[in-house]
Amino acid sequence: MSRIEMVDVTPKPIVHREAVAEGVIRLRRETVKRILEGNVEKGDVFAAASIAGILAAKKTPELIPLCHPIPLNKVDVRCEVVDEERVRCTARVVTDAKTGVEMEALTAVTVALLTVWDMVKKYEKDEKGQYPYTRIEYVRVVEKRKEG
Amino acid sequence: MSRIEMVDVTPKPIVHREAVAEGVIRLRRETVKRILEGNVEKGDVFAAASIAGILAAKKTPELIPLCHPIPLNKVDVRCEVVDEERVRCTARVVTDAKTGVEMEALTAVTVALLTVWDMVKKYEKDEKGQYPYTRIEYVRVVEKRKEG
Amino acid sequence: MSRIEMVDVTPKPIVHREAVAEGVIRLRRETVKRILEGNVEKGDVFAAASIAGILAAKKTPELIPLCHPIPLNKVDVRCEVVDEERVRCTARVVTDAKTGVEMEALTAVTVALLTVWDMVKKYEKDEKGQYPYTRIEYVRVVEKRKEG
Amino acid sequence: MSRIEMVDVTPKPIVHREAVAEGVIRLRRETVKRILEGNVEKGDVFAAASIAGILAAKKTPELIPLCHPIPLNKVDVRCEVVDEERVRCTARVVTDAKTGVEMEALTAVTVALLTVWDMVKKYEKDEKGQYPYTRIEYVRVVEKRKEG
Amino acid sequence: MSRIEMVDVTPKPIVHREAVAEGVIRLRRETVKRILEGNVEKGDVFAAASIAGILAAKKTPELIPLCHPIPLNKVDVRCEVVDEERVRCTARVVTDAKTGVEMEALTAVTVALLTVWDMVKKYEKDEKGQYPYTRIEYVRVVEKRKEG
Amino acid sequence: MSRIEMVDVTPKPIVHREAVAEGVIRLRRETVKRILEGNVEKGDVFAAASIAGILAAKKTPELIPLCHPIPLNKVDVRCEVVDEERVRCTARVVTDAKTGVEMEALTAVTVALLTVWDMVKKYEKDEKGQYPYTRIEYVRVVEKRKEG
Repeated sequence: MSRIEMVDVTPKPIVHREAVAEGVIRLRRETVKRILEGNVEKGDVFAAASIAGILAAKKTPELIPLCHPIPLNKVDVRCEVVDEERVRCTARVVTDAKTGVEMEALTAVTVALLTVWDMVKKYEKDEKGQYPYTRIEYVRVVEKRKEG
Repeated sequence: MSRIEMVDVTPKPIVHREAVAEGVIRLRRETVKRILEGNVEKGDVFAAASIAGILAAKKTPELIPLCHPIPLNKVDVRCEVVDEERVRCTARVVTDAKTGVEMEALTAVTVALLTVWDMVKKYEKDEKGQYPYTRIEYVRVVEKRKEG
Repeated sequence: MSRIEMVDVTPKPIVHREAVAEGVIRLRRETVKRILEGNVEKGDVFAAASIAGILAAKKTPELIPLCHPIPLNKVDVRCEVVDEERVRCTARVVTDAKTGVEMEALTAVTVALLTVWDMVKKYEKDEKGQYPYTRIEYVRVVEKRKEG
Repeated sequence: MSRIEMVDVTPKPIVHREAVAEGVIRLRRETVKRILEGNVEKGDVFAAASIAGILAAKKTPELIPLCHPIPLNKVDVRCEVVDEERVRCTARVVTDAKTGVEMEALTAVTVALLTVWDMVKKYEKDEKGQYPYTRIEYVRVVEKRKEG
Repeated sequence: MSRIEMVDVTPKPIVHREAVAEGVIRLRRETVKRILEGNVEKGDVFAAASIAGILAAKKTPELIPLCHPIPLNKVDVRCEVVDEERVRCTARVVTDAKTGVEMEALTAVTVALLTVWDMVKKYEKDEKGQYPYTRIEYVRVVEKRKEG
Repeated sequence: MSRIEMVDVTPKPIVHREAVAEGVIRLRRETVKRILEGNVEKGDVFAAASIAGILAAKKTPELIPLCHPIPLNKVDVRCEVVDEERVRCTARVVTDAKTGVEMEALTAVTVALLTVWDMVKKYEKDEKGQYPYTRIEYVRVVEKRKEG
């Protein structure tokens, strides 16, 4: 019979904590060009992705079953074109809390990348409605820090 | 000034639609062994990941700004050990609706993978609290289908 | 390794469906008297319970992992004093959908009963801050119907 | 004792429905100028407002107790500078459903206007941290239509 | 390319903060009379509006993209008939936090006003199903305070 | 006219608090046997119930109108077979906050019990699709504690 066990953060001190996560979405060259030219029918891809990522960070304890609900001081999500075929989203989350915020940063990054995908769906599909090029990759924690 | 434009699905017919997405999380060998042995302190990793993925699919229109809220017939999330260093999660989403469900399948997969990460955090961190090994990779739509 | 499996409702027809559920909360006599007299400091107990129950019915697919998100035609939650020590909440949920709504009715009832508890907490606690009298009981599906 | 009664939409036909709502936020001239110049520290005011409004429309049945959860075909939120002291947000919501979508359009408009406020808070406060100028006004349903 | 930037509240001290916001809904005289007489078919308008407003205040960081999730000490929403054609809702929100709660108070007020609208929809529509009279007006922050 | 009044927790100190709640679901003997044998088609009943309970505890302030949003240190939900006809779920919630967590523990317990019901629905229904045996009972606060 399964057991599911949340960590008890009672003994942990409230300290300043930050986490940075990033990830990449691989797109067709034509799509990346459209993003750079602001020529995407659904509108501003990176604005939508940033806002979706920020909102998602705040939803982390609803999405990841064993995450603790904590106050957040800041969530920052940035998206940029890396090269002709790739867009990178980076999230930084800051808190003063009993537990780290890497899951919040990862959640922000993945939802931002999914939002990029959704915004450019139309240009990524082939004639059969499939996505042979689109991939989300290298989602990782760049750095985790705590003070004191 | 930015413009954000949701697609109007009014003219689209209600048809049977399915989408399958998958993705991989790269973990330390010791962690994969622990998962296989059921030796993870937080409990059943794949049960937590599947349930989190199913619940996340249902939250897609809250997470991805321009997704339409639609009824879902089924969400299926499966996780399995691929090799000594990798776990794969696969989601299949089924609907009778005016719009496809690949974003729902992708959301289920990424939240399932994030939940795997959260369940085994303790074994993935190095002595400095960083995650030098852990990566989410190859998140992609395997297949999208519609009938009629 | 755990498996979690949502039912695929694709083959089910869209038909008219109703479910009625009810449950009881056992309270101190003094508390029931206060409810009847409208003398509860936090305000109108049954208005709060009804609204909380209606909103909860709409959240069922977020709360119960394998429930399907479906449109609802009506949610009705009624609370009444049964005798000197008991309040009953009854929920009726109506839909035209591929799947029944008994979980929606049960969710509405239990959240309505929990809201009654929360509204009268102050009068139910003993001098040690415990709740020796308060109980939620007999939560059951009274009737489930479908047409056609 | 209070009674709360949702309308039963069972007898209503599924028809095409649209609703347009709008509202205005009154701001300081300096703030409107900043919006026009794209000189707001928190970023793109109208992108944030539009996305927040679209997401809010989808949350209407969670926010307004007696609203029915229904599928939406499209939500469109546009913001524009009306004159030196006013910004207007307009929302159009489209559905094929048993019930109208004016509450969804109104919810989208008000959350978009609140987001404009939040984005420019810093420029609206006086030296005592008060908001003597900022007002949300004229929130109304412009038009409601159904076909058939 | 759009930039979206949440304020980092790390350097701000945790202090006691309060905010009061209010707004008005303009209704038909007949509707206001019905509210005063408790003769509204959907039930207790002000109970529904108050509860919806309180719940909405707690959802502020989900609704307004750049709002910080913070604990709230109290949310108070009151509705009253101002004159023959107007109802006013007032919200007071109290916290001990690093950031002010005026957006929470404004969110509570606007959702309370929208709930009033929804509760009396039937009486506000003209013979063409339009709302020529109904308006939400004068939504403003009455006062914002912090201690220390 | 109804009044709804949240308690102002401003004067309360932040102290360590715990609450334990439990409840029982009465099932058919055949169903309990299936649970013990791991022979339930939808999958691992207790894993699903525990995770649903933990997630529900975190949603308490969205579900119960006058509950305060607070950080939680730990939520623990356990389910076990009590005898041939009954399953018990127990929730323990731990916080350092200005207010107690008995409503969080009760919410976790009731949603866990509802999830058990949903997982075994198929085996509990009689030939008319009714639930003559299934009951949720004895939902109570076992203990509430605070330190200092």
